[in-house]
Amino acid sequence: MRIKILGSAAGGGFPQWNCGCRNCTGLRKSTIKATPRTQTQIAVDANPEYTQRTHWALINASPDLRTQILRTPELAPIASTSNSTPIYDVFLTSADVDSIAGLLHLREFQGFRIHSTGSVRRIMDEENSIFRVLGRATPPVQWYSLPMATEFSPTQVPDMREAPKFQVRAVPVGGDFPDYVGEKLRLRLNPSESVVALDLEYRGKRIFVAPSLPGRDGNWKKWALGSDLVLIDGTFWNDDELRRAGRGKKTAREMGHIPLSGPDGLLEQYPKGSKGRKILLHINNTNPILIEDGPEHRAAMDAGFEIAYDGMEIQL
Amino acid sequence: MRIKILGSAAGGGFPQWNCGCRNCTGLRKSTIKATPRTQTQIAVDANPEYTQRTHWALINASPDLRTQILRTPELAPIASTSNSTPIYDVFLTSADVDSIAGLLHLREFQGFRIHSTGSVRRIMDEENSIFRVLGRATPPVQWYSLPMATEFSPTQVPDMREAPKFQVRAVPVGGDFPDYVGEKLRLRLNPSESVVALDLEYRGKRIFVAPSLPGRDGNWKKWALGSDLVLIDGTFWNDDELRRAGRGKKTAREMGHIPLSGPDGLLEQYPKGSKGRKILLHINNTNPILIEDGPEHRAAMDAGFEIAYDGMEIQL
Repeated sequence: MRIKILGSAAGGGFPQWNCGCRNCTGLRKSTIKATPRTQTQIAVDANPEYTQRTHWALINASPDLRTQILRTPELAPIASTSNSTPIYDVFLTSADVDSIAGLLHLREFQGFRIHSTGSVRRIMDEENSIFRVLGRATPPVQWYSLPMATEFSPTQVPDMREAPKFQVRAVPVGGDFPDYVGEKLRLRLNPSESVVALDLEYRGKRIFVAPSLPGRDGNWKKWALGSDLVLIDGTFWNDDELRRAGRGKKTAREMGHIPLSGPDGLLEQYPKGSKGRKILLHINNTNPILIEDGPEHRAAMDAGFEIAYDGMEIQL
Repeated sequence: MRIKILGSAAGGGFPQWNCGCRNCTGLRKSTIKATPRTQTQIAVDANPEYTQRTHWALINASPDLRTQILRTPELAPIASTSNSTPIYDVFLTSADVDSIAGLLHLREFQGFRIHSTGSVRRIMDEENSIFRVLGRATPPVQWYSLPMATEFSPTQVPDMREAPKFQVRAVPVGGDFPDYVGEKLRLRLNPSESVVALDLEYRGKRIFVAPSLPGRDGNWKKWALGSDLVLIDGTFWNDDELRRAGRGKKTAREMGHIPLSGPDGLLEQYPKGSKGRKILLHINNTNPILIEDGPEHRAAMDAGFEIAYDGMEIQL
């Protein structure tokens, strides 16, 4: 399998448009050793053995998606034919702005498939009419429900000759629905469908993708242990990082992200003896691991983690 | 007054992510003389005489807004303080995706002012809960109704010491609400509030901004004639351009854009003897004026029009 990390930052990107924190200012003035990052976006070559035509699946649709697609030659349409993008599928892990806003970049005359939990779809269908622009395409965008923890292959989807061969399952990781969701709808949604991780399997190789990991239960550890590649929540270093940076009042955990540091942080909690590569992504602009010659960056590397960057490519 | 064109293309930008038309393919392969363009975005230095701190107003919020702000040093926040963007105001001319999607890029902890018609606000308030993320800021984003064809100065807004001194009025130009708006709400909206142009005035200098001009009535000509700078709808060259390019079935006029060419096109209809600079923007990826050594590009220049490009700056 071939995976491309088109974006590796958390919501707002790095630098953030209105942020004067140490990291963002240092990056703008080149006074720190750091690299700009767009908002987290993953693309998977979903059908590596189908040689006639590549077949890409996106994991989430970031607000930077238009720029990210233009930067990635593999995702360009086939010349001289319209609507011939190699992007066939979009898998959504939540209804957060950074997961779904990019669907508005894909509005132009293109039918593709969206896979999400029923609750995420209801938030868009029932409370956000703007996403109806996806129905303009002929054929319109088709919506499939992402089953929770049961085997599922897009090949089971009807009328899809070129469907990807890999298997996908959604893994509930706890977490909450976005704060913009109305109370009335929220009460009718299934909380286990608010935030999911994805388990992708292809010929016995497994990828575990968890851009948001609240870490309220230890269920994720089993998947981290059993996967060949783990793309995991590296949003915050400290639980009170946003408050320290004057960027907000909520803690990392209140925002649904287990922090990297501390006795109950991700680095400590991560299961020992896991065989796979483990890569931190969804990195917030305030996170000190962004400073490439800093102690936190070093600590993450010493713990055996890689730190995702835009354009990173992984071959499995 | 100082105006910056941060983006000059129509919805989808140039090239468009999934488009293999002659222009987009030629641009990707560098086989035509053309320049990439992000989606139309205008920024106005709204308080040129207030020297202590610049004070920018955005006209619309394009889906490319994050990239456009990062490319524009004047719009960077003041170093080492958080939430110190010089962007104070956003004026919306419609509820189209390319006018409002960029507000989601501005969601991070920042209070600013949005000015729109009541109908545009209702579409976002009543049918699109995702825009509630703008309420997260402290103070939250404030919403002001843009009066139709009556004098208005943001200085009249309470508690705004640093308010801009220029005057803004909304000019109804006809047009329709976006197709995503539900029938029930649509019936309760005021049609004259669907699409507006803006008249900006500062010390006797006038700017007329009309990124979408249906041209169903001739009202716009009075404003074009009386303004020192006209930023006007250059979306399509031919009325049937999209059909020819295999990009859709609607004509330019059905989409709310008067085409540039033809006896009843913008170039012919534009009032003779207008004194001001006239600049075409909101240029669709299929428009042949994008080919810089082509006959249509030449014809537009010969008719006295300039063709907007990303980064274009105008001083009045």
